[in-house]
Amino acid sequence: MSGNTFGKSFTLTTFGESHGPALGGVIDGCPAGVPIDIDTIQKDLDRRKPGQSAIVTQRKEPDTVEIYSGVFDGKSTGTPIGFVIHNTNQKSKDYTHIKDSYRPSHADYVYDQKYGFRDYRGGGRSSARETAARVVAGSIAKQLIAPVQIQAFVSAVGELTLPNPEATSDYSFIEQNPVRCPDAAMAAEMETYIKQVRKDGDTVGGVITCVAKNVPVGLGEPVFDKLHAVLGQAMLSINAVKGFEYGSGFAGAALRGSAHNDLYNEDGTTKTNNSGGVQGGISNGMDIYFNVAFKPVATIMQSQETIDNKGETVTMEGKGRHDPCVVPRAVPIVEAMTALVLADFTLRNRNSKL
Amino acid sequence: MSGNTFGKSFTLTTFGESHGPALGGVIDGCPAGVPIDIDTIQKDLDRRKPGQSAIVTQRKEPDTVEIYSGVFDGKSTGTPIGFVIHNTNQKSKDYTHIKDSYRPSHADYVYDQKYGFRDYRGGGRSSARETAARVVAGSIAKQLIAPVQIQAFVSAVGELTLPNPEATSDYSFIEQNPVRCPDAAMAAEMETYIKQVRKDGDTVGGVITCVAKNVPVGLGEPVFDKLHAVLGQAMLSINAVKGFEYGSGFAGAALRGSAHNDLYNEDGTTKTNNSGGVQGGISNGMDIYFNVAFKPVATIMQSQETIDNKGETVTMEGKGRHDPCVVPRAVPIVEAMTALVLADFTLRNRNSKL
Amino acid sequence: MSGNTFGKSFTLTTFGESHGPALGGVIDGCPAGVPIDIDTIQKDLDRRKPGQSAIVTQRKEPDTVEIYSGVFDGKSTGTPIGFVIHNTNQKSKDYTHIKDSYRPSHADYVYDQKYGFRDYRGGGRSSARETAARVVAGSIAKQLIAPVQIQAFVSAVGELTLPNPEATSDYSFIEQNPVRCPDAAMAAEMETYIKQVRKDGDTVGGVITCVAKNVPVGLGEPVFDKLHAVLGQAMLSINAVKGFEYGSGFAGAALRGSAHNDLYNEDGTTKTNNSGGVQGGISNGMDIYFNVAFKPVATIMQSQETIDNKGETVTMEGKGRHDPCVVPRAVPIVEAMTALVLADFTLRNRNSKL
Amino acid sequence: MSGNTFGKSFTLTTFGESHGPALGGVIDGCPAGVPIDIDTIQKDLDRRKPGQSAIVTQRKEPDTVEIYSGVFDGKSTGTPIGFVIHNTNQKSKDYTHIKDSYRPSHADYVYDQKYGFRDYRGGGRSSARETAARVVAGSIAKQLIAPVQIQAFVSAVGELTLPNPEATSDYSFIEQNPVRCPDAAMAAEMETYIKQVRKDGDTVGGVITCVAKNVPVGLGEPVFDKLHAVLGQAMLSINAVKGFEYGSGFAGAALRGSAHNDLYNEDGTTKTNNSGGVQGGISNGMDIYFNVAFKPVATIMQSQETIDNKGETVTMEGKGRHDPCVVPRAVPIVEAMTALVLADFTLRNRNSKL
Repeated sequence: MSGNTFGKSFTLTTFGESHGPALGGVIDGCPAGVPIDIDTIQKDLDRRKPGQSAIVTQRKEPDTVEIYSGVFDGKSTGTPIGFVIHNTNQKSKDYTHIKDSYRPSHADYVYDQKYGFRDYRGGGRSSARETAARVVAGSIAKQLIAPVQIQAFVSAVGELTLPNPEATSDYSFIEQNPVRCPDAAMAAEMETYIKQVRKDGDTVGGVITCVAKNVPVGLGEPVFDKLHAVLGQAMLSINAVKGFEYGSGFAGAALRGSAHNDLYNEDGTTKTNNSGGVQGGISNGMDIYFNVAFKPVATIMQSQETIDNKGETVTMEGKGRHDPCVVPRAVPIVEAMTALVLADFTLRNRNSKL
Repeated sequence: MSGNTFGKSFTLTTFGESHGPALGGVIDGCPAGVPIDIDTIQKDLDRRKPGQSAIVTQRKEPDTVEIYSGVFDGKSTGTPIGFVIHNTNQKSKDYTHIKDSYRPSHADYVYDQKYGFRDYRGGGRSSARETAARVVAGSIAKQLIAPVQIQAFVSAVGELTLPNPEATSDYSFIEQNPVRCPDAAMAAEMETYIKQVRKDGDTVGGVITCVAKNVPVGLGEPVFDKLHAVLGQAMLSINAVKGFEYGSGFAGAALRGSAHNDLYNEDGTTKTNNSGGVQGGISNGMDIYFNVAFKPVATIMQSQETIDNKGETVTMEGKGRHDPCVVPRAVPIVEAMTALVLADFTLRNRNSKL
Repeated sequence: MSGNTFGKSFTLTTFGESHGPALGGVIDGCPAGVPIDIDTIQKDLDRRKPGQSAIVTQRKEPDTVEIYSGVFDGKSTGTPIGFVIHNTNQKSKDYTHIKDSYRPSHADYVYDQKYGFRDYRGGGRSSARETAARVVAGSIAKQLIAPVQIQAFVSAVGELTLPNPEATSDYSFIEQNPVRCPDAAMAAEMETYIKQVRKDGDTVGGVITCVAKNVPVGLGEPVFDKLHAVLGQAMLSINAVKGFEYGSGFAGAALRGSAHNDLYNEDGTTKTNNSGGVQGGISNGMDIYFNVAFKPVATIMQSQETIDNKGETVTMEGKGRHDPCVVPRAVPIVEAMTALVLADFTLRNRNSKL
Repeated sequence: MSGNTFGKSFTLTTFGESHGPALGGVIDGCPAGVPIDIDTIQKDLDRRKPGQSAIVTQRKEPDTVEIYSGVFDGKSTGTPIGFVIHNTNQKSKDYTHIKDSYRPSHADYVYDQKYGFRDYRGGGRSSARETAARVVAGSIAKQLIAPVQIQAFVSAVGELTLPNPEATSDYSFIEQNPVRCPDAAMAAEMETYIKQVRKDGDTVGGVITCVAKNVPVGLGEPVFDKLHAVLGQAMLSINAVKGFEYGSGFAGAALRGSAHNDLYNEDGTTKTNNSGGVQGGISNGMDIYFNVAFKPVATIMQSQETIDNKGETVTMEGKGRHDPCVVPRAVPIVEAMTALVLADFTLRNRNSKL
């Protein structure tokens, strides 16, 4: 496998399987002198962890981060930041039923085909547990790019959709409800809906909207590493993501240029923001916003027909402790990946001019 | 600027401005022994070039590719393939009106901010002329990954949308009409619509759908370089792209897991293909399909208020020879970027097992 | 800091300071199915560790490796191999005398200049403790590239030099003596010499020769990543290394072409091996051999005048537990870096041909 | 083939064979605003070109560089700088005698083994003609890192060796003599020697010393990308190089620490410079100096026994126009690679601190 490193100047390499001794990562390229507050990192991790509310998986994983290097006297030293989260609640025997069988719409089959065998426990490397390492690194990235503010929230669960989510001006309710939706009425509706889905032994997808404010002009490298292209890769690399759009997105494809163009004010800001804060792959100082679509979790509490590794049909019963809807817990992951992208481009942008 | 290289094993580095002497690229990592047919490359280039029909820009650019290295006796030698397309029809004086002013929803403003100055002629590096180099490299990539078949086509222009585009089974009409839509009736409607938009001095966006068939199981590197994540970056790096979705995409976010899961047949194929041919970031052998949203071209034949580089309001008149709708010419670009991604993962996949 | 990753297909990223909680690394790109024997890794680590003989530092560091991911059922799974070595014998207070002062010919001064401050304990990231992670990864690389045999040994200590070290045919005595010199008489002389140097409160440099046998034809990528160029970088990246030469090396510069050229046998082997097993940057199947020069350890048990971080002259007394000569313990490090280079080129070579 | 890109922030990708239509390169990562003087580039190229004196090959290759992109109004724009040198004097038929046979100590045999076939004309990609592209890029790099001064010169030809070459203080004679040796008496002796070698139909090796002055403190990335390690790779990647040493080099391995350590002056400079301007992989502000050993050119004007691609013994006659000693023409190549390394680390160093 390759592809476990993200970023070119501010780089994160992650390792770890769902049920191995530990997972973790190495950040290489963090400049010296960034204040690193471990409590802040742990808080971001806690927003992602299982068991935090009634509508997410009830697994108990404390997900405590230990930093092994690169921080001294409360600041980054410029050397690689190695960190580890020990796995403490692995119940490997929960997974013996999938050892030889392939869960539908999971990575079991393709892993066996690609690698010849797999660590089947909890999905191994394909488990979304890997994203815990991203949250740690993203939290450090946020401290590097302050005062940029990154806020993600749930804008759709199944068919329940918050209209014009990018126009949300009050973020205060997001962390006050288990769905992480900024609108109280919609949040309540979504919560009820998710509970019903769980009762049905089913799962449901959703959409996360993310907004980044105070981004300076100039981030992003034209051509292949356009800001929105790398953001797109970052989001699509999160487990269960099926789509990404920024600014006017897919709806913008239906518009005419005369309606879509963002006209300038004299200070260089724009009167509208169909561009989503990015023009020609470079941030223009306006809010960056984008939507990320998540499919329904593949593990359902219903029996499904599938095949085993001999190609024979078997019936698989849903087992274990899983999320009925992944988007509430994915909010901090979306923020983390956004922070990693912006941190990387912040450093790369230092070399734009002589 | 950085970010002018795409791929990790099969890599393309491009260079060139719209109105400089030439643009081109270098492919590093093409294995020795791939038959390279220059006529095939030129044909792909011709599908992208201006002036090929009545509904695209009437600029005349022959876009003839010259290969400078890496090919000997009709085959790749394993050494870097350097190639060049000379710019022959530059009318730089067409662009003196934008030297000091910023076209709305173009990259002029952010380039000046990021680099301190810019080659303003024809958009310089931010021009979509750069994609000619991608088409050359993509055409070579296609020859490497044969018998994979990649077919893109227009599935929406403005509000005209082809339903279930991924289910299209007959591709024969695509190159028979200037819109590159596989459905004759819809193609005619779209053509009429684009002509009207041009008459209005306006532009319109659209959507391209792309399908890759015969892709072997195993392409894609889990975690950050998931197959669909890198495809997403590839597509979003094309000028004017605003969104990317694969498989069930944004619509999939509204579904339940019991409806969305793709159940297996005994041969490892799946009964449905909401996964879009990718599970856990790895191709599963089913058709890969995805949609790419393009915004309306920013240059319109209407006067717009904008600012100059002193922050003063000026009126800009639309000038030059531009596309009213970019999707017909973008079809070969989407295919080229798809081929580059699949070629890269084909080579990387060779190292999956001992 | 960047530059903590080595390799392009088989990559190692390391982290960790001398006196932090732990050091470690992540291998990304190891194919699935490589048998991983932890005892073998630990044995290589033990050859590097302090305290193993009377002529090396008497610090006690058990250097026990823990593998956190990427290995399942005794084989690599293809996923990243994360590993950690906890630091157990840090005596940070040993280093308060260097907190504000700069040891001559150490990295203290340049770290403060480059990063603004430094983790001064034991040299922090500039400590050769970092190489423990390389030995772990190199040991895994050796298991990947079997049956390639890599053997390094000491060929010079101070002015004591083994003539024609590359011609050594019997390696059996190398691990039988604390100097790791293959020649018994010379080994004894070197041992006595090192003991005298230590008694003098001084240190001395040396040379390590390394030979790789059974290397297949074709490893190495011409132009910038020539096999010997990357080997050179690998060796020069080891602490205290001052020079690298392969094949005829510096002596070859004094020869004429008629004497230097290696003529072919009919089977493609060569009658002589001034090329050191590499032609045009590609292995030719003959033994690869090279020499690596190490400077004397900078920490001496004598008082030296130096400056503090205010630019004032201070006297520094030698303290702590240090090696009088680094080459005996550097032998497994040279082997490890050689293995990493050969593993990387083995994987890259899989893409030479269609 | 991979490995045709050098550098991580200031990157050069080269392409081109000896006898193809053209060779060239792309620089990605040059900041905007660097004054680019084409005459200066051409002058550096002229120092490398064949036919410039009586002691080098008499081939006539004008080696005129054309810049295709990335420069506007006399300055770098920040976009990739693409450049080309057309091959104008290819006499491919000179090489039909090596089409099926393997020249001793050349890359012919390993290319055929690795790639299955090769462009045999003039050595193809393995020809030192490729270094012309490096000289172009190095010349641009020099303009970026001004006021750093890089000066290389010949310090040995065969057994004729200039003592203490790093102590040379007067560089004025270097470009006044065809050998590029700074000492008039030694230069004359070397010139006579080279002429005799050529008369003998033979070739001879040599050593180039390079000194970089005015290098700021802080360049180089510890661990794998130590300044001297990357310089080593850079030098060893030049055709015919067999060894690299910096500062005290191999001689330093024979010294004791008490003699080798560089003591500080109160301003942070050192009283001696055994470190060669680099400590812990980071420049310390003192002169950087190093030696590069070149083997004798493999093509000699004598008949040699060798094998053909069927493994049969054949006699090969020396033909064509070749250098009897490569070091005089390699001086600008050594300078160019040094400049590329320093330019890359200059940009990377911008991210050392917050």
